[in-house]
Amino acid sequence: MSAAAAEKAPTQQFADRLFDSAATGNLEEVKSLLNAGTAAVNAKNERGWTALMFAARNGQLPVIQYLTEKGCDVNIMNSSGQTALDIASFWNHIDSAVYLQKHSTQSPYDLVSNYFSQNPLYRASDLRKNSEWLETVMKKESTKYVVFDADLSPFFIQGEENRFKFAVFTYSQLVSCLAIKAQVIFLGLETWDPHSSAWFAVRLPDQDNSVCKDSYPDGIFASLFPRGREVLRLEKTHAGLFAEANSVLTWLDRYKFCPTCGSSTQVVEGGYKQVCSNTQCRSRNGVHNTCYPRVDPSLIMLVVTGDNRRCLLGRAKRFPPKMYSCLAGFMEPGECIEDTCRREVEEESGVKVGRVDYHSSQPCLSQQHLCLAVLHMLAQKKLRVDPNELEDARWFTRGEVGQMLAARHPDGMFLPPEEAIARQLIMYWVARSATNL
Amino acid sequence: MSAAAAEKAPTQQFADRLFDSAATGNLEEVKSLLNAGTAAVNAKNERGWTALMFAARNGQLPVIQYLTEKGCDVNIMNSSGQTALDIASFWNHIDSAVYLQKHSTQSPYDLVSNYFSQNPLYRASDLRKNSEWLETVMKKESTKYVVFDADLSPFFIQGEENRFKFAVFTYSQLVSCLAIKAQVIFLGLETWDPHSSAWFAVRLPDQDNSVCKDSYPDGIFASLFPRGREVLRLEKTHAGLFAEANSVLTWLDRYKFCPTCGSSTQVVEGGYKQVCSNTQCRSRNGVHNTCYPRVDPSLIMLVVTGDNRRCLLGRAKRFPPKMYSCLAGFMEPGECIEDTCRREVEEESGVKVGRVDYHSSQPCLSQQHLCLAVLHMLAQKKLRVDPNELEDARWFTRGEVGQMLAARHPDGMFLPPEEAIARQLIMYWVARSATNL
Repeated sequence: MSAAAAEKAPTQQFADRLFDSAATGNLEEVKSLLNAGTAAVNAKNERGWTALMFAARNGQLPVIQYLTEKGCDVNIMNSSGQTALDIASFWNHIDSAVYLQKHSTQSPYDLVSNYFSQNPLYRASDLRKNSEWLETVMKKESTKYVVFDADLSPFFIQGEENRFKFAVFTYSQLVSCLAIKAQVIFLGLETWDPHSSAWFAVRLPDQDNSVCKDSYPDGIFASLFPRGREVLRLEKTHAGLFAEANSVLTWLDRYKFCPTCGSSTQVVEGGYKQVCSNTQCRSRNGVHNTCYPRVDPSLIMLVVTGDNRRCLLGRAKRFPPKMYSCLAGFMEPGECIEDTCRREVEEESGVKVGRVDYHSSQPCLSQQHLCLAVLHMLAQKKLRVDPNELEDARWFTRGEVGQMLAARHPDGMFLPPEEAIARQLIMYWVARSATNL
Repeated sequence: MSAAAAEKAPTQQFADRLFDSAATGNLEEVKSLLNAGTAAVNAKNERGWTALMFAARNGQLPVIQYLTEKGCDVNIMNSSGQTALDIASFWNHIDSAVYLQKHSTQSPYDLVSNYFSQNPLYRASDLRKNSEWLETVMKKESTKYVVFDADLSPFFIQGEENRFKFAVFTYSQLVSCLAIKAQVIFLGLETWDPHSSAWFAVRLPDQDNSVCKDSYPDGIFASLFPRGREVLRLEKTHAGLFAEANSVLTWLDRYKFCPTCGSSTQVVEGGYKQVCSNTQCRSRNGVHNTCYPRVDPSLIMLVVTGDNRRCLLGRAKRFPPKMYSCLAGFMEPGECIEDTCRREVEEESGVKVGRVDYHSSQPCLSQQHLCLAVLHMLAQKKLRVDPNELEDARWFTRGEVGQMLAARHPDGMFLPPEEAIARQLIMYWVARSATNL
């Protein structure tokens, strides 16, 4: 055993032995390590590789079968975004790939789980139209409240695995500030059962936040800027709660007057609708979007070459040094998604784009954006970067992108964190294109 | 020859002979008809079938090869949404299917061409920020104007193939009403060359529409309601122009006051931005969506069963009798597309939905909607229709849907017209599922 190996923790030493025996096809050693409980079946090395991936790398089918029977997760991705199936396919181990394909219970689409997309609540959009029901439910002791301060900073406490989560309050804990016209919005129910617990978000009416600190002395009001602070380190379901509450509260903060006639508005339907106070206003007849929250669709776009070997990444001036990401842009009125992609990519980089594929969506951090991530096939390779839009844009090989994903690029270039849909899209491309080389 | 056949026009008689000889594999007859010029290679029968489709139906590979060499279009779809490739695959003619696959130059995605998505203009979003450039371009004689009246009805004339198109005006034709504060918005340039012709849309300032009738006495101001009138019978590229102009003009019509402070606004950037007139307003610092047009993403959803044999269609009370269509719903703030689908389908029909696939998008007729069409896999089949949302919803087999597409359903049920993205989505499913039965 080398000196470096000797310094490792015992758990990691057993995991390393598991990886070695999986890679070399030593089934007896794999069995012995797992049955003794000294190594975990889904243990990962520092690049996110599991024993199954090492076995897949070398086509060790008996080991793959045994690990699968022992309940290993065949859908795990390593830090390059590859599953064991991707690896077996890439190295042309057909039998192993076919076996892994059969045991992959999820489609590639189902594997996508964007950070802000995992809201556990049922929005109950019908029930929130009933103001009496809302008032009754608000006062139930099983009802849960999350809190934002007057500047819309959310109040978090420490959660699991070094992540944050919302501090959760009851009605009686907040009754003093609810009485003085705090803004309250309905987030949803815990299940589709109308009697399940309801969740609300509260925006405190002034700078007196003592009600929060009294209950949770260690809680913090998280700053939304600069990006990447506490809001990007939430427990996952709380990121979904944040996306919903933040979108509605931001809308109510910026939309206080009727855009059609300039009168003040009244908030109804648990925060999801505003009605103009002027009974003569046109917005009072029929259904008009002036009364409802905005969802501004923006596109996060990964352009790939026709041979699928390179992708186009760019950086804006405001990015941290050496960070590159997908191109991005807003949809315009009367435009379809596919045309937005073609227009934005050509405007920003001069590259002409052909086919457009949809990847996934998630609400965005700082405004009411919808992110749509897509892959593009290339019609023309010449780059002509618009300096007003981007500081730089260039083609990266799949290998380079793999280095960036693993934080091992020789020039220190890197990608956005996994909470960003851009990284999810890039990982998806790396994993898929690995099997198509 | 039957009496019915004898009544047909000679062109159709030759086409029928071409179809017969393609179906029976009579290559000499096919050659003779095409070389004599008596039948067109892409001729269709009343169900949209071409000679290639008849050959594909019976696996007549030599005829398929000959028709392809003669330049027939392998991507044409019949009125059930099937290509020749779909038909050959469905009837298990493997050699023919492989040959047709090789000669299909377009992917299924590229075949999608939604009615309102085909805007031929380049929006030149950078140039429109330059007000001096806009003012100069407006007065050029090569610049083209389309017109809406004060009620936002567009002014159309007869186009090709019994369709309508915008009447196009020059600056000098409109100069009298442009002088009295008609609303003018910039639509884009004919190409990416900044010197190419610019297009604008004008909203007339009052009820005096004589300027239109003077130039085009036969022109009409098209009513947007009820749906399905002239706006759904435009030449295709003009439908894209309409979508852009209508979206921006509708926004300017409904958004006249700053939602943040209630002050009046000033329209800039060729109609694509409004700036609050109150210099103290928060909306003047930074970029805020209060200043930009809305794009409200709504989803058009086709739910299909796990075995891909049935799909769920519903009807709203406002539909014409016997018309069924996809389910539909708006995205909510902080929601991802996939969750909107699952929530809306379960709310409206009680059906639980699993995987969500994206199909295509197009701007919508009457407001600034973005339509996203998706296929869903089913997790639970039990229907529980919400009477507030739908009058009826039921499962239809692929065969029934084929009858509805061909307007031959025994009970007279039918689908929306091909200008609706819902029909495009349904046709796509029928064509794809035909190959997977």
